Amino acid sequence: MGVTIEFEPAGLRVEAETGQTVIQAARGMFSFESGGISAPCGGKGLCGRCRVRLVEGELSPSNDTELKLLGEKELSEGYRLACQAIITGPAKIEIPPEILAGRQKLQLEGTGVSVLPEPPVSRYNVPLEPTSLDYPHSTWQQVELFLARNHGLTDLRVDPGLIGRVEPLAGEGTVTVTVRGSEIINAIFNGRARKPLGLAVDLGSTKVAGYLVDLETGATLATGGILNPQIAYGEDVISRLAYALEGEEQYDRIAGVLRDGLGRLLHDLCDAAGVVPQDVEEAVIAGNTAMHHLLLKLPVGQLARSPYVPALTLPVEVKARDLGLQMAFGAVAYLVPAVAGFVGGDHVAMILSSGIHESQGVTLGLDIGTNTEIVLARDKEMLSCSCASGPAFEGAHIYQGMRAVDGAISRVEVADGGRELFYETIGGRPAAGICGSGVLDAVAGLYRAGVINYNGRLDASHPRVRFNEGRKVAEYVLVPAEKSGSDRDVVINQKDISEIQLAKAAIAAGTKVLLAKTGLTERDIDKVIVAGAFGTHLRLESAIAIGMLPPLPLERFQQVGNAAGDGARMILLSKTARKRAEEIARRIGYLELAAMPEFSNTFLQELRFPEIT
Amino acid sequence: MGVTIEFEPAGLRVEAETGQTVIQAARGMFSFESGGISAPCGGKGLCGRCRVRLVEGELSPSNDTELKLLGEKELSEGYRLACQAIITGPAKIEIPPEILAGRQKLQLEGTGVSVLPEPPVSRYNVPLEPTSLDYPHSTWQQVELFLARNHGLTDLRVDPGLIGRVEPLAGEGTVTVTVRGSEIINAIFNGRARKPLGLAVDLGSTKVAGYLVDLETGATLATGGILNPQIAYGEDVISRLAYALEGEEQYDRIAGVLRDGLGRLLHDLCDAAGVVPQDVEEAVIAGNTAMHHLLLKLPVGQLARSPYVPALTLPVEVKARDLGLQMAFGAVAYLVPAVAGFVGGDHVAMILSSGIHESQGVTLGLDIGTNTEIVLARDKEMLSCSCASGPAFEGAHIYQGMRAVDGAISRVEVADGGRELFYETIGGRPAAGICGSGVLDAVAGLYRAGVINYNGRLDASHPRVRFNEGRKVAEYVLVPAEKSGSDRDVVINQKDISEIQLAKAAIAAGTKVLLAKTGLTERDIDKVIVAGAFGTHLRLESAIAIGMLPPLPLERFQQVGNAAGDGARMILLSKTARKRAEEIARRIGYLELAAMPEFSNTFLQELRFPEIT
Repeated sequence: MGVTIEFEPAGLRVEAETGQTVIQAARGMFSFESGGISAPCGGKGLCGRCRVRLVEGELSPSNDTELKLLGEKELSEGYRLACQAIITGPAKIEIPPEILAGRQKLQLEGTGVSVLPEPPVSRYNVPLEPTSLDYPHSTWQQVELFLARNHGLTDLRVDPGLIGRVEPLAGEGTVTVTVRGSEIINAIFNGRARKPLGLAVDLGSTKVAGYLVDLETGATLATGGILNPQIAYGEDVISRLAYALEGEEQYDRIAGVLRDGLGRLLHDLCDAAGVVPQDVEEAVIAGNTAMHHLLLKLPVGQLARSPYVPALTLPVEVKARDLGLQMAFGAVAYLVPAVAGFVGGDHVAMILSSGIHESQGVTLGLDIGTNTEIVLARDKEMLSCSCASGPAFEGAHIYQGMRAVDGAISRVEVADGGRELFYETIGGRPAAGICGSGVLDAVAGLYRAGVINYNGRLDASHPRVRFNEGRKVAEYVLVPAEKSGSDRDVVINQKDISEIQLAKAAIAAGTKVLLAKTGLTERDIDKVIVAGAFGTHLRLESAIAIGMLPPLPLERFQQVGNAAGDGARMILLSKTARKRAEEIARRIGYLELAAMPEFSNTFLQELRFPEIT
Repeated sequence: MGVTIEFEPAGLRVEAETGQTVIQAARGMFSFESGGISAPCGGKGLCGRCRVRLVEGELSPSNDTELKLLGEKELSEGYRLACQAIITGPAKIEIPPEILAGRQKLQLEGTGVSVLPEPPVSRYNVPLEPTSLDYPHSTWQQVELFLARNHGLTDLRVDPGLIGRVEPLAGEGTVTVTVRGSEIINAIFNGRARKPLGLAVDLGSTKVAGYLVDLETGATLATGGILNPQIAYGEDVISRLAYALEGEEQYDRIAGVLRDGLGRLLHDLCDAAGVVPQDVEEAVIAGNTAMHHLLLKLPVGQLARSPYVPALTLPVEVKARDLGLQMAFGAVAYLVPAVAGFVGGDHVAMILSSGIHESQGVTLGLDIGTNTEIVLARDKEMLSCSCASGPAFEGAHIYQGMRAVDGAISRVEVADGGRELFYETIGGRPAAGICGSGVLDAVAGLYRAGVINYNGRLDASHPRVRFNEGRKVAEYVLVPAEKSGSDRDVVINQKDISEIQLAKAAIAAGTKVLLAKTGLTERDIDKVIVAGAFGTHLRLESAIAIGMLPPLPLERFQQVGNAAGDGARMILLSKTARKRAEEIARRIGYLELAAMPEFSNTFLQELRFPEIT
């Protein structure tokens, strides 16, 4: 029976089934770095770490394991072990912060993956007999004979490193071997193999989202995200490339932190799903081109300066162990091919999952981030470009900007000519700052209310506009200090508006140049796909109002969430989808905006806000 | 024009072409460890090391390089540089021992390879343009585009380690890339690629023979051999396995010396052919099962004790660099699959090159060595076994035995009831001892002359038979000390005869058990293939006389030389041959003689010599 469980303090509601443990129910959460509740013992009731508190509603009666690990006092206060307590009805459950690795809200679930599982790896259970003079066959020989006789597989190889890791005289039992192409990549003895799993990763400059997927059913067993640990070496991509270029040691370090991060992410996902890494037999990584290169330690000098070319745009297959990923011994990590220096495998994955490559008519696709990748598809022709839209929509470079975490203003409604203002914050907390969608709403609302003019200038005579004494910058007060969560006024200022103008102008100019190059106008667009975390949360009316998105009827828009993550999962699950992704990467035309004088002109025009209709 | 060149002191004749240098002509020699004349500078006339002496006939007049490096005195004595002197007609040329790595005679050329080159690697020359804003493509991107557009190759990968070894902005020029399957394994810039080469290796316990092959024409450019450096850890296979089993460090060491040896062999072959290792793009290694395992560092515990099973019998493909072989960066070493613990990839290669797998009627194939592998083929059915024939035929365990090197008695003719004896030695030198073919002839001749009876006992009353005073062992004097090259009588003694009885009994019993198992008799055999160095040099009449080979008309026998080496070259050159080798490995039935009581009985019977007919 389906019931709703609300997790505190995030206030996240998930649909769970009665009979599930709380840990299992928590896997439905999509928004925590740890990918749910951390259970170091794998949910076996051994470590007592997955301590949660029942706030409202009911759970199964506590058991002996919980009594032993929590004690009577904690039980009486409502504490439970998430791996033992069973969902019996609706409940509100508090997860103490210490068992969550972090609290940043990430967009991990998009439109959902819909693909027939057809994974690149196949498992076979091979019965083994003891080796004897009458049956003089070693373990691998028995595997060879069995696969040839029963499955017609005669063209096999074994990962050379795996050969010696298998006991030659294993004796009676079973070995589960995994075949990828013609290579045997995994061997698990005596029923310890559970189900074949895969790891899909959307590798962004800021966020790294991971999905642990059941390769047989296609089900996502756990999702999680981490901040890209390379942030320590620069928020922007160019700083990180520059760091890597300082020397071998620096490159090792910046690649190493990312590899370590991926390793932890995989570990946490396995923990959350209660599985072991040896069952994870394939990884797919879709990332922007710079992250792709920095992960693989490819040459990046040419990526850091014009014309910003990738070292290569072929798919890369590398043993996962060579990236430090501890999964099945011979598992392969597949890196989705990039298109250009600023159009990466994540863009390819986005196109795949949103179906842009096979859409009819004219489709515009935007994956909005620090760099915004835009694709214009007419029938089967695709042309992409990338424009530097900056980090304003992630809350950076905004005076009181913040990421989309608790306390961030995420929705703004301007009324009464700007004299009144309504807003929502994430988690319903007192406003501590403003995130991308909030800034967008605020600018659009203030523009429509006339508080901002078409050049983006704040009306200094407006009653809520003032000059910040120290900074001589005009600002509009969104939330006065007495109502805020930060003991100071939450404002939006003239510079913030300029940042938004720069960002929206880049996106709009990119779109227009693509259209011009293709001989089309905005009116010809049949469908607009808006992808990415910010793209999913933004209010379309606001984005249209400031001229970031084309002025089309709302029904032509589709906000698809983390389409790159969805695409990565499709590529993980299906060989057909993988082929298709490679075709997409080859087929996309790339427009280098830096090489086009008309881009600069259009960009300058687009700094203005459009006429109010 | 073809002329004959005789090389001293080996007395080897090769067919050469006028216009070739002496070094080039020497590559036709097959019998030296160094694979010809060692030329450290690569035959460029820089080092002066390849000093040879013209003994008879003529060469081109000496040039300035020779004058500079040899001086007038040496030139006047007939010394020349082998890299400078040109063949102009027949000649006899002396090669000083110091420029030959060793002097052991190895059987390297067999029946000769006859196979249509169809190598697993293909080269493509890709024209490159400078990367610019108008042409924003890196080197790999240009390769990708070129191969897709001009060769329809769209499913490529690059060896991950190779990606970063290529300059991303190579600029104008050409890059030659090599594709293996769907993987790019090599990239050579600006015409430095010469021709694609391959390395074939016949990896024996005692001898390692290497062939450097032109993958386009199939020509063997250089051949060479080394003693297996593992001999230092035991002449026999079991001692080496035992050493490897002592611990990780020991295994590293014994695998390491072999890998190092292969590396030196490759290096010497490249030197001899005047080529660079980066052009060597594939290696094929056919070895006995123990050598195969010890090279790859596979588990060997199970190989050292009954039932002696290999860790695996699938083909192994490993990056050559992981075996320490410095060839093209991404080159693969392919190890021919084994059949059983004592039936290795060399046996498979032997069957392939001698065509046993597709012969009509009944064919018996023997590769005689310390272990003798025997295959019995009836139409397409093949059954193999291995028997421990011991090292007697390599001169070991024979009182005055020696390898087939200069001074070894290699042919013996017994006349006048054993009172007279004629013999030949290798190189025509005074007799220093006796090698395998000589021992075989001597035993056969003495048996036919009645000096040895059917039980192998020497007739103590024979005038040339005496008792060695110190050792109380009957012996027959082959060469008295005054005529020998060793200041002592060269003899054959009762123990030597026993060794030959043990060896021949093992081979004969193996053959008979195979026949019995297949419901055949010796008379049903249509063809007998005798392979291996000893097998090629032995006198068939002698082998038949002592009962080692079946008593069949001589025209049914074929001595095919180093058929394993030939097979290795075929597998290197042709994907079809490779497939066929894998089929052979799968199809061969294996008879474990140790599991068959009838083998012991037959063996005991076969210790006797057959009736003289």
